[in-house]
Amino acid sequence: MSKKILRIDMTHRKATYEEVPKKWAHWAGRALTSAITFDEVEPTCHPLGPNNKLAIAPGWVTGTPASPSSGRTSFGGKSPLTGGIKESNAGGLSGQKIAGLGLAAIILEGQPEDGKWTTLVLTKDGVEFKDASDLVGKGMYEVDELLWETYPDTAVIGIGQAGEMKLSNAGISVNDTENRPGRYAGRGGMGAVMGARGVKAIVIDDTGGPGVEIADKELFDLGRRKLTESIQEHDLTKKGGGLPSYGTAILVNIINEAGGLPTRNFSAGQFEGAAKISGEAIAEVVEKRRTNGGYEGMVGHKCSPGCIIGCSNVYPDEEGKHIVSCLEYETAWALGANCGIDDLDSVARMTRECNDVGVDTIESGNAIAVAMDGGLLKFGDGEGALKLFDEIRRGTPLGRILGQGVEATAKAFGVHRVPTVKGQSMPAYEPRAIKGIGVTYATTPMGADHTAGYTIAPEIAGVGGKVDPLSDEGKADLSLTFQAATAFIDSTGYCLFIAFPILDIAKGWAGMAETVAGVTGMSITGDDVVPLGKGILKMERLFNEGAGFTPEADRMPEFMRYEKLPPHDVVWTIKDEELDKVYGWVHNGS
Amino acid sequence: MSKKILRIDMTHRKATYEEVPKKWAHWAGRALTSAITFDEVEPTCHPLGPNNKLAIAPGWVTGTPASPSSGRTSFGGKSPLTGGIKESNAGGLSGQKIAGLGLAAIILEGQPEDGKWTTLVLTKDGVEFKDASDLVGKGMYEVDELLWETYPDTAVIGIGQAGEMKLSNAGISVNDTENRPGRYAGRGGMGAVMGARGVKAIVIDDTGGPGVEIADKELFDLGRRKLTESIQEHDLTKKGGGLPSYGTAILVNIINEAGGLPTRNFSAGQFEGAAKISGEAIAEVVEKRRTNGGYEGMVGHKCSPGCIIGCSNVYPDEEGKHIVSCLEYETAWALGANCGIDDLDSVARMTRECNDVGVDTIESGNAIAVAMDGGLLKFGDGEGALKLFDEIRRGTPLGRILGQGVEATAKAFGVHRVPTVKGQSMPAYEPRAIKGIGVTYATTPMGADHTAGYTIAPEIAGVGGKVDPLSDEGKADLSLTFQAATAFIDSTGYCLFIAFPILDIAKGWAGMAETVAGVTGMSITGDDVVPLGKGILKMERLFNEGAGFTPEADRMPEFMRYEKLPPHDVVWTIKDEELDKVYGWVHNGS
Repeated sequence: MSKKILRIDMTHRKATYEEVPKKWAHWAGRALTSAITFDEVEPTCHPLGPNNKLAIAPGWVTGTPASPSSGRTSFGGKSPLTGGIKESNAGGLSGQKIAGLGLAAIILEGQPEDGKWTTLVLTKDGVEFKDASDLVGKGMYEVDELLWETYPDTAVIGIGQAGEMKLSNAGISVNDTENRPGRYAGRGGMGAVMGARGVKAIVIDDTGGPGVEIADKELFDLGRRKLTESIQEHDLTKKGGGLPSYGTAILVNIINEAGGLPTRNFSAGQFEGAAKISGEAIAEVVEKRRTNGGYEGMVGHKCSPGCIIGCSNVYPDEEGKHIVSCLEYETAWALGANCGIDDLDSVARMTRECNDVGVDTIESGNAIAVAMDGGLLKFGDGEGALKLFDEIRRGTPLGRILGQGVEATAKAFGVHRVPTVKGQSMPAYEPRAIKGIGVTYATTPMGADHTAGYTIAPEIAGVGGKVDPLSDEGKADLSLTFQAATAFIDSTGYCLFIAFPILDIAKGWAGMAETVAGVTGMSITGDDVVPLGKGILKMERLFNEGAGFTPEADRMPEFMRYEKLPPHDVVWTIKDEELDKVYGWVHNGS
Repeated sequence: MSKKILRIDMTHRKATYEEVPKKWAHWAGRALTSAITFDEVEPTCHPLGPNNKLAIAPGWVTGTPASPSSGRTSFGGKSPLTGGIKESNAGGLSGQKIAGLGLAAIILEGQPEDGKWTTLVLTKDGVEFKDASDLVGKGMYEVDELLWETYPDTAVIGIGQAGEMKLSNAGISVNDTENRPGRYAGRGGMGAVMGARGVKAIVIDDTGGPGVEIADKELFDLGRRKLTESIQEHDLTKKGGGLPSYGTAILVNIINEAGGLPTRNFSAGQFEGAAKISGEAIAEVVEKRRTNGGYEGMVGHKCSPGCIIGCSNVYPDEEGKHIVSCLEYETAWALGANCGIDDLDSVARMTRECNDVGVDTIESGNAIAVAMDGGLLKFGDGEGALKLFDEIRRGTPLGRILGQGVEATAKAFGVHRVPTVKGQSMPAYEPRAIKGIGVTYATTPMGADHTAGYTIAPEIAGVGGKVDPLSDEGKADLSLTFQAATAFIDSTGYCLFIAFPILDIAKGWAGMAETVAGVTGMSITGDDVVPLGKGILKMERLFNEGAGFTPEADRMPEFMRYEKLPPHDVVWTIKDEELDKVYGWVHNGS
C-alpha cells in the first residue's frame, strides 16, 4: 500500500486522502514540507490569511521498526515571524503515529469562516472534526491531559494560548511518551499558522494503521546496524556520554569558555553565572533532589520511543515532582545567560510556561532580554521575567508584544540592538566569536537558526574536523556543507544529534543513507546526502526570493558590525560577498 | 553668500557649517534630503541606531519673498516604519527660517552616549546645545508654548512622547503661525529618527540671517506672477474655491460618492456617516459655534506665512476655543470613516491628541481600525478610541503597540487584513476602487502614500485630464508621471496643492519651473520637471534596493486581491508585471 497525502480543508471542514503526486514521491520530512510549501503556497500571501498552509510530515525512516532516534515530525509553511519559508521539527510521539497511519504528509489548509475551533482526530478510519470549545483558552499541559482522558496513548499536536492569538512566536507542541507538552516545533511561529486554520489540536491514533513499508529490508537493516553502532561508539552520544549524562546543556560551560555564550542581549560572550545553569548543574540538581518514591527528576530521558541517545531530562522541584521536561542548552541560555539570570529553578519554571502557553524558548528568552535592554526589567530579574509569561497567557498588550518575539519587542521599546536575521532571533552561539555559525544564521532560508547548519561541531566540539571559531576563513563553504547535510537529515526523521557520530564515524554516515535507501527504494549512498540537501535548500531559497528576499536579507544585524564583543573584543568581519557566495550556486549552477 | 550645510553631530554635541558639496549644489527639499540619505546613510543600518541620519531641508524657493504657498520643509532619512528611504514634508514656520539662516540643509547625525535630551537653538550666530530635561515627557502643545516663552516667534521643530519612545509611527511637528503643533512631517516615523539622535526640539530664529539669494530676479518674478495667477484662477484654490472654503475634507463626500472611501479597516468603499465628517460639516460647525469675541474657529486658515490658498482650518469646541488645527481630509477619514466613527468632535479631539503626543494621524487611524478589526474595540467607539492616545502618551504596552502603526498592531492582534505597502498604511483612497492611486501606493519608494503620486486629480477630480478610476488601463504610466512631478514639487518648497492649478493651467506649470530657475540660476523649464523628478526617484529606489527591497515590495496587500470591495464589488486587478513596469526604467535606461 502506497503512502497517502491527507488534505484537510478547514474552510469546509472536509478531509481527503490523495495519492502522493509524482513530484513529491521521493520526499519526506523537511524535504516534503518545503516542497508542499513551495508548490502550493503563494510566497506573497499573508502567513495568517486563508492561503497559507501548514504541512506536517514524518521523515523517511520515521515509524520503521528499530531505526534509532528517528521520531521527528516536520512542520512547514510560510512563517509569520520571517515572512519566508519555514520548517521546524520536533520529537515526541507524532511522527511515528502519522507514519503508522500510512501518511506521507498532512496538509492543513483554508480557514473556517465561523471562527470556531476544531480538534482533529485522526485514526485508520479517517478524520473527525470535533468542536474544540472545551480546549480553547487552555495551556498545553491541560490540553494534553484532557485529550488523553478520551484518547489515551495517542500523539497530540497542539497550540497554546499564543497560537490561538496567532502571535508570531507561537510554536506547535508535540507530546512526549509521558504526555508532557515538551517537544516543540518552536521556531518561526508555526503555531500561529496552525491557529489561523482554526485547529487547536490534532490527535493521532495509528492503531490498526498500515505502518511504513520497507522496500529493501536487508539494506535497511545493514544501514540501521551501522548507524546504531556509530551512535553507541561516539563520546557524545554513547551510554554515559556527554549528551545522555548532561543533556544538551553540557554546552553551557564549553561555549562560555570559548567566549561565545551570548550574555545580556548579546552584549558579552561570557556569563559569570554560566556554571549555575550548565548541564552539570542540572545533573547535580536531579541527583540532589532525589526523594523516595515517585521521583520524577532524571537525566538521560528519551523524548520519543526508540531513541538510543536520550539527551532529554526531567527537571524536578524540591518535592521531586517535575517542573519541566526538558531543560535544553538553548533554553538554559535564552532564559538564563541572555537575560542575566543564573537561577536554574527560575529558568525551569519559565521553560514550563513557554511549553504551556506555547511559545519558543529561544525567541522568548531573546524577547525578554531585548525588553530588559529597553528598560522593562533589570537583567537578572528571574521573578519579573517569569511573570511575563502570564501576560502572554492572558493576551495583555505586553503579552502580545513579547509573544511576537524579538523584532516586535525591540520596536515597542525602541531598542536598536536587535539580534535577528530575517526577523528570527539568534540562538545560543555568538556569531562574532564563532564565525561559521554566523554564516549559517545569515544565509539559511530559515532566519537565524543554529540547527540549520551546525558548524559548532568542528568550530567548538572538534567533531567532523577542527577549525578556528574566530577565523573568517572557509566559513562560507563550511556553512553550506552543513546546511545541505542538515536539510537531508531533517528529511530522514532522524534526530539531528546523529550528526555528531556520523560526522566522525564513516560507517554511520553511510548507514544513515542506507536506511533511507532501504526504506524508500531510492538508489542513494552517503555521497548523495549533500547534493540532495542542496536540492531542498534551493526550493527554500526560491520561495524566499518569491516572497521578496534579496542578499540584503542575508546580513548580520548592524550592531554586530560595530560593537566589540568581550572577551575577545571582536566584531562581525565576514564580508557580504562571502555571504553571497553561500547561495551563489542557486542561480549560477552548482 | 552661498548656502551652507549645517551638520550637527549629536555624539559629540558639535556643530559645523560646511560648503554645499558640488553633488548637492542643485538640490533642495526632498531632492536634497534624499541625496543626503542616499550618499551618507548605509541602507542596511538600523533606523534607530547611531548610523542613521535626519536630513532637514527647505525647498528651492522657500524663504524667497512673496513666492506663494512655498513654506515646506522636507525631513528625510531611513524610515523605521518601512525600512526604506523616507521623505516627509510639512508646512509651518520652519522652512522659511532655515532658509533665512542661509542653510541648504541641516544634518542631524550620531547618538549621545549619555542618553540625555537636547534642545538645539539655531541663530545666525550658530548652534546652542541646551539641556532639554524641562521638555522631556511633554506633549508638543506644551513644548511649543514653553519654547516661545524664551524664544518668541521662532520656528519650533519637535517630537512628542512617541518620538522620545522611538515608536515607528512618531512624527515631527512644526509649529504654525499661531504656534500650534499642527503641521506634521507625519509619515514614516521620522520622529523616532529625531528621537534616536537625542533631540527633543529645534528652535530656529533667523533674525539677521542672510536670507535666500535670487540668481535671476526678473525670471523669478515672472514665474511667481504666472504661478500666483494660476492659483488665483483655479476653482479648487481660488478665493471662495473648494479648498479655502471647506479645506481638504471637501473630498469626503466626493470620494465616498465614488465608492472609494475606505471604511471600517478597508472593508467597504462607502461610509454611511460620511456627510457628518465632511468638509461641509466642518464649515457648518465653524459657522454654528461662532461666539462673541475671541472666537478661534475658522476655515481658510493658512498654515505658513505667504500661503495664498489657505486650506487649513481651526476646529472649535462649543465655547469657541480651538480644539485643533487642522482637521484634514486624511484625518477625518482615518480617525472617522475608517474607524466607523461619524462624530466630528471625537475626530477633532483625537487629532489634537495625535498632534500633541506626536504621531501620524493616517497611521494612527489605521492602527485603531485594525485593532477594532482584531476585537480591541467596536467600530464606531469614538470615546474608546480617544482613550487609546493616552496609552501612547504613557507608553503603556498597548500604547507602544498602537504607536508603532498598523503592521505592529495587526501582528499583536492576529489580524491578516492589513492595508499596508512596505510597512506603511494606506491613506484615504481605496485602491480597489481607484486603481491609479493603488499603483502609486504599491510602487512609490515611500510606502503607501497618496502624496507621492496623486492620480486622484485625473481619476476623481477631473484635474489634469479625466480617466476612469475603476479601469486598470494606463495607470502605470499615469502614476509614474505623477510620482516624478511630485518628487520635483516636493523639492521646490511649494505646497503640493499648487498641483491642482498648474496641472490645468499651463502658465502655472511654466511659472513654477521659472521660479526655481530664477532662484537657483539653473536653466530649467516646465519640460524638465518630470525628468528631474525621475532623477530623484531613482536615488530613492536605489537606496531601497540597497536596503533589500525587491519587486515583491511593490505589491498590494493580499486580501485586496481576493476580498471584493462594496459598492463596486471590485478586487485589485492590476497585474504584477504592470507594477514592475513603473520603475523598469531605473535599470533599463529611460
